[in-house]
Amino acid sequence: MSSPTNPGDYTSLGFKEIITRLDGAVLILTINRPKQRNSWNKTLPWELLKTFEIADKDDRVRVIVVTADPSAPAYCSGADISQGWKLFAEDEKDTEHRDTGGMVSMAIYRCRKITIAAVNGHAAGVGMTAMQLPFDFRFVWESAKLTFPFVRRGIVPEATSTYLLPRLLGHSRATSLLLSGSTLSPTSPLLQPLYHTILPTRTDVLPAALTFAHELATHTSQVSVAYTKGLIQNPGGSIEENHLLDSRGMATLGKSRDAEEGVKSFREKREPKFKDRLGEVEGEWYPWWKTVDVSVKSKSKL
Amino acid sequence: MSSPTNPGDYTSLGFKEIITRLDGAVLILTINRPKQRNSWNKTLPWELLKTFEIADKDDRVRVIVVTADPSAPAYCSGADISQGWKLFAEDEKDTEHRDTGGMVSMAIYRCRKITIAAVNGHAAGVGMTAMQLPFDFRFVWESAKLTFPFVRRGIVPEATSTYLLPRLLGHSRATSLLLSGSTLSPTSPLLQPLYHTILPTRTDVLPAALTFAHELATHTSQVSVAYTKGLIQNPGGSIEENHLLDSRGMATLGKSRDAEEGVKSFREKREPKFKDRLGEVEGEWYPWWKTVDVSVKSKSKL
Amino acid sequence: MSSPTNPGDYTSLGFKEIITRLDGAVLILTINRPKQRNSWNKTLPWELLKTFEIADKDDRVRVIVVTADPSAPAYCSGADISQGWKLFAEDEKDTEHRDTGGMVSMAIYRCRKITIAAVNGHAAGVGMTAMQLPFDFRFVWESAKLTFPFVRRGIVPEATSTYLLPRLLGHSRATSLLLSGSTLSPTSPLLQPLYHTILPTRTDVLPAALTFAHELATHTSQVSVAYTKGLIQNPGGSIEENHLLDSRGMATLGKSRDAEEGVKSFREKREPKFKDRLGEVEGEWYPWWKTVDVSVKSKSKL
Repeated sequence: MSSPTNPGDYTSLGFKEIITRLDGAVLILTINRPKQRNSWNKTLPWELLKTFEIADKDDRVRVIVVTADPSAPAYCSGADISQGWKLFAEDEKDTEHRDTGGMVSMAIYRCRKITIAAVNGHAAGVGMTAMQLPFDFRFVWESAKLTFPFVRRGIVPEATSTYLLPRLLGHSRATSLLLSGSTLSPTSPLLQPLYHTILPTRTDVLPAALTFAHELATHTSQVSVAYTKGLIQNPGGSIEENHLLDSRGMATLGKSRDAEEGVKSFREKREPKFKDRLGEVEGEWYPWWKTVDVSVKSKSKL
Repeated sequence: MSSPTNPGDYTSLGFKEIITRLDGAVLILTINRPKQRNSWNKTLPWELLKTFEIADKDDRVRVIVVTADPSAPAYCSGADISQGWKLFAEDEKDTEHRDTGGMVSMAIYRCRKITIAAVNGHAAGVGMTAMQLPFDFRFVWESAKLTFPFVRRGIVPEATSTYLLPRLLGHSRATSLLLSGSTLSPTSPLLQPLYHTILPTRTDVLPAALTFAHELATHTSQVSVAYTKGLIQNPGGSIEENHLLDSRGMATLGKSRDAEEGVKSFREKREPKFKDRLGEVEGEWYPWWKTVDVSVKSKSKL
Repeated sequence: MSSPTNPGDYTSLGFKEIITRLDGAVLILTINRPKQRNSWNKTLPWELLKTFEIADKDDRVRVIVVTADPSAPAYCSGADISQGWKLFAEDEKDTEHRDTGGMVSMAIYRCRKITIAAVNGHAAGVGMTAMQLPFDFRFVWESAKLTFPFVRRGIVPEATSTYLLPRLLGHSRATSLLLSGSTLSPTSPLLQPLYHTILPTRTDVLPAALTFAHELATHTSQVSVAYTKGLIQNPGGSIEENHLLDSRGMATLGKSRDAEEGVKSFREKREPKFKDRLGEVEGEWYPWWKTVDVSVKSKSKL
């Protein structure tokens, strides 16, 4: 069952701020800081990063669901400012600072599995950005109070939100959200298209997300998902370049066992049994894109 | 009446899978495979390609409407899998495969006339992608069942859908649609903005699309339409570059007969009589963009 | 109070077609051509340009609101065609023409202050493009008749609208709007996401916009706003490049007085007193992007 990189048991990883549990092919990650309103501190991002790094390579995992301990009213209340604003004023040189929100956002965004945020409470700041925008699907509580407060705090929208939000919702909504810092409900016309499903009660959010997660885990091909995310994120610079890429993807996957099973199970009107594993397919063509090195040592000229 | 490249009579082109008819300045193309649920086989894409190639150059045509024979419940049910999954497993090298869905998508997207999809039935796979996404306007039946099932079949979204869908609807909706493979109605918040008009009954779709098509054929300048599509598709890489392009477009068309007639008819509150023809305007500046050669012989490095 | 570039009193700038008034930190610009339906003539764009140029550099200004004299039914009825179509047919070479709509659009779009359009009447042509699309927020009267009529006049969509509109609303809505030239209400599904707030009566529009403007002027940091607009407009070409940019932004502003005051006032549950001024922050890093020179003498090859 386990892949070479599989750490074995997700419940024994020694995390302090999160709880992880593998439920079939669905990995559930719960932010476990209810007394601090599930806020972002110095430890949490590294545990999130580590989990997504492992799950990306663990062939058992098909879907990752992130949620928060529901005994707090907040899914994630943003940065922990109980020590004031020190979190934003690092000692290192300006050119060497790397925002931890952005590091987590990139890990979730680039993760090749299906990712779902189950937003079962209020969210602000990094709770709106890193903990929601890089996911494939967002489920949310109808009465959640949601805000991007950055311009009201004297700082900038972080965690790659100025890249992700305009692409997710278009510039009209994204600019309104980021430049007003208003607190809104998920049913606001400005926010609504961000959410796949809006639930009337807080306790409905995680169960609904898990039902959806298990349905996708059963009915989707892991390799198809990875290629599709690759095509959405790296589509080529024109319709013609995209045609070359999806043609190559179709030529490659069209011969796969999953493609045969996908069509066969559809014609036989039964549940598919997809067996291809992502760990087997990396090769000369996939991934076809290059990723900019953002490590401090890379001496980026930006 | 006929242009140099005009094939004469669209009803005599010898097509097997489609019916074409010129109704004034509106070309109507009907997919005619009701017994096969108007599905995509090896012949249909070539007939679609040929029609859009001719219509693009035929100055008589101002609007193209695509619909399907309504005796089937489907507008286009996707690839014909009656022979299994062989359609996806071609004999040629992976690097030389060119998806026919993408070839049709590009022909419709790059067509300089107004294009309208009249989706008078259910649609799946290539029936959602090539047969809908590259069009300028989509009319649809309210009860149509619509799905992008690719991740559920072990393959990838094709026909340049990973380029077109995120641009049409934003990444939030596009990712939800492509990674879930859910079957949805056009009134779903995830799909609704894809459609210009949603009609309550199947038989209303084509008449509504044709009424709109004829209104546009009468009231829009053929050359303005081509330039506008060019600017939308090739806007320049920044607001400044776009300013240079639309300034040049305005300088060019501002002196045209159609611009004079456009303002004159507006002031006189009468129907315009636009006479400029697209075949006359290609010159040193238009088209200002270059298109990537995707033919197999081009030896693209992608 | 006044910055070095401050012209002193906005009411004494000698404008003919507009009225400008500084109300606290909110600059109100009113188009004052009611007898000509607040249409665009040869003078108006230069007065708009001048005002945005001054206000961008005047540290007293935090928000700019544009509206129109309400004794006309139109917010801006487009180009003044009372002399026919001559406005579009300039004497200069095609390569040297620079659309005044685009010049105004760029000045508003690149302005580093919050910009709000208070659309208190009907709008057509440049009244939809330059006078609405480059703004951060749009408030509108529910019964306004709105149209992009370009393809119906034999010309092209101008004022950088083919750059801005697809980014604001996505290509599905933008293509429908620009290629149909239909006249729509702001509550149309095609237009609705363009607007932050839709008001039932004409006379409600400006007061609602001003209340919002003053709330933002008090509660947002001028420097944060400028950096945020910079990140939204120049986000880098990938999520990784965006991470480098917002990390640098956070490193820079995280040490600012406004960041300290932002967190402090939030914790103390009181109104913030933001003191940092945009004129003080331009330096080695900000602005990090380059802007294409579009002046005629630049000899652009486009």
